[in-house]
Amino acid sequence: MKEQDNPKSALHEKDGIPQPESFSVSAMAKVLTSRKVQPSAEELVKGILSGNISALSRAITLVESTNPSHLAKANDIISACLPHANQSVRIGITGVPGVGKSTFIEVFGKYLTGLGKKVAVLAVDPSSSISHGSILGDKTRMEELVKDPNAFIRPSASGETLGGVARKTRETIILCEAAGFDTIIIETVGVGQSETAVHSMVDFFLLLKIAGAGDELQGIKRGIMEMADAIVINKADGDNVAKAKLAKTEFNRALHLFPAKSSGWIPTVTTCSAYEKTGIDNVWQIISDYFALVKGNKYFEEKRQSQSQYWMMETINEQLKNHFYQHPEIAALLEQNKKAVEENQLSPFAAAMQLLAKYFK
Amino acid sequence: MKEQDNPKSALHEKDGIPQPESFSVSAMAKVLTSRKVQPSAEELVKGILSGNISALSRAITLVESTNPSHLAKANDIISACLPHANQSVRIGITGVPGVGKSTFIEVFGKYLTGLGKKVAVLAVDPSSSISHGSILGDKTRMEELVKDPNAFIRPSASGETLGGVARKTRETIILCEAAGFDTIIIETVGVGQSETAVHSMVDFFLLLKIAGAGDELQGIKRGIMEMADAIVINKADGDNVAKAKLAKTEFNRALHLFPAKSSGWIPTVTTCSAYEKTGIDNVWQIISDYFALVKGNKYFEEKRQSQSQYWMMETINEQLKNHFYQHPEIAALLEQNKKAVEENQLSPFAAAMQLLAKYFK
Repeated sequence: MKEQDNPKSALHEKDGIPQPESFSVSAMAKVLTSRKVQPSAEELVKGILSGNISALSRAITLVESTNPSHLAKANDIISACLPHANQSVRIGITGVPGVGKSTFIEVFGKYLTGLGKKVAVLAVDPSSSISHGSILGDKTRMEELVKDPNAFIRPSASGETLGGVARKTRETIILCEAAGFDTIIIETVGVGQSETAVHSMVDFFLLLKIAGAGDELQGIKRGIMEMADAIVINKADGDNVAKAKLAKTEFNRALHLFPAKSSGWIPTVTTCSAYEKTGIDNVWQIISDYFALVKGNKYFEEKRQSQSQYWMMETINEQLKNHFYQHPEIAALLEQNKKAVEENQLSPFAAAMQLLAKYFK
Repeated sequence: MKEQDNPKSALHEKDGIPQPESFSVSAMAKVLTSRKVQPSAEELVKGILSGNISALSRAITLVESTNPSHLAKANDIISACLPHANQSVRIGITGVPGVGKSTFIEVFGKYLTGLGKKVAVLAVDPSSSISHGSILGDKTRMEELVKDPNAFIRPSASGETLGGVARKTRETIILCEAAGFDTIIIETVGVGQSETAVHSMVDFFLLLKIAGAGDELQGIKRGIMEMADAIVINKADGDNVAKAKLAKTEFNRALHLFPAKSSGWIPTVTTCSAYEKTGIDNVWQIISDYFALVKGNKYFEEKRQSQSQYWMMETINEQLKNHFYQHPEIAALLEQNKKAVEENQLSPFAAAMQLLAKYFK
């Protein structure tokens, strides 16, 4: 028995006056409807092609979703956007933590929007689920660019394998290009395997460094230096100017010893200070020179084509492996054979053949 | 009707006197028997473990065979040899044509047998079927080493994919080690993909170069310099000595800019003249220093283990791909989808997914 139902109780509550609804019923109905009825693929495509950022963001969310029905819808959107994509320059930027990537991208991005470009900044960082979104997570470090109506910043899809993140980033590039972004910047941390993936989805690969080398070099993965189309030595300001100039000379000499690139491009070294906003125009000049060269000698087109074919093959390869390793009988035998190989009881080839016989049986 | 059967014919042939057999029947019987009864796997293993070169060669031929019954026998032999393998140093040597690889390996090999080593020289060159065995094919260029009882030279298994050649080379290493060869040299041309494969099967990777850089660098694949544990500048003789010394300084400076190796080893640059047989002892000293370091810090053992696991995974991966691409319905759709990707009608991911759906159906 409730207190208020008992008129004898001291806890009796007086009837109050009727209160107005604290929200508009019609507004709420609208919200509920809009939550239930997601925009169709056609509507999103229309929005993207007209440069609507909200439609772009929603489409990217579908691309990143693991829900199979979202995947189908995302595929439809991408197919419709594909003929409108590819009209852009795609720039990969890598460098270990501490070289000032965020500041550089903020200043570089602002410089580009100042030239009338529309800039999208994406990131590939499969580890961000562990490091809780270190890349682009802290958007406050790019607050000027975030507010710029001609810039679009999207953090890395996280909690995924490199293959998954790479696939999503590639499809996000298509959507951004269809939405009219003509300069795509893809950031990566320079310590893992993601650089190779990023290198396979951009036209130009920029390695950001700071002078006074030594320790900070330890963090970067071997092979990245040879991928670079440009090495930009950041923080060339104050006491660092002389050191940065020396580093530039050294890297120039080192790059000279590398084999020539099939693009015909000679990798370039330059210095800049994102903090003092100096040398940024020069970085863009180098990138522009590169694009003039590779669009002239058709390497640009060839590379994009071979990247597309590469990603088709990579996706097939990854899915074949997933299917194999998820096979219920494989896991146990795999552990057993790994051990036998470790103990020199089985050659790697024989161990693999046993596993394959079980899989294809 | 034959002419000689007609006694009226002018072409009648007189009966001659009986001729003796031109070969010994008993000797022929022996040959036929020995050809029919191949030595058993046990006999070959026994032969290999006692250092019998003929048994080793026969076993390698089985490893290289595409006949399935040979494969089974080869597997038995390898399994039996595995516990006796691994007691060696494995050295990869690469360099573009013209740097004097054959001469270097001949002189280096002779130096090592002079130290009491047993040296096996193998090659990885999947292209040799096209270039008709360019590598080690011309054994006359290693005539001293060929005659050395403590050296064993085996040309590359040819007419195969890189994966096939790599597998066979890895298994040949095991057989050579079981036969008592303590120094395994694996040669590759430095222009294709085989360097990565060779890098994944050796302990030490040596890049052979000549001074006066420039043009000959064009041929070498990017990324190889960063793989090198040592760069040896050959042909440092006569007028070339000064140039070679300068190149040494330059490469040393360049290598210094590379990130540190997980082995803890600092890549070293040296000069030599295979022609004048100078500097060869120094090359061996560098290699010995490397092994002292990595055997001390356990990197040697770790790397061999991870290489074995890598090759198991690689074999699985390659076979999964083979199975997929040999699927009768895949080839036609693959061509179709490649074209659709090329023409921006299908994203690489969607194209891959269509193919996978057909394969797993």
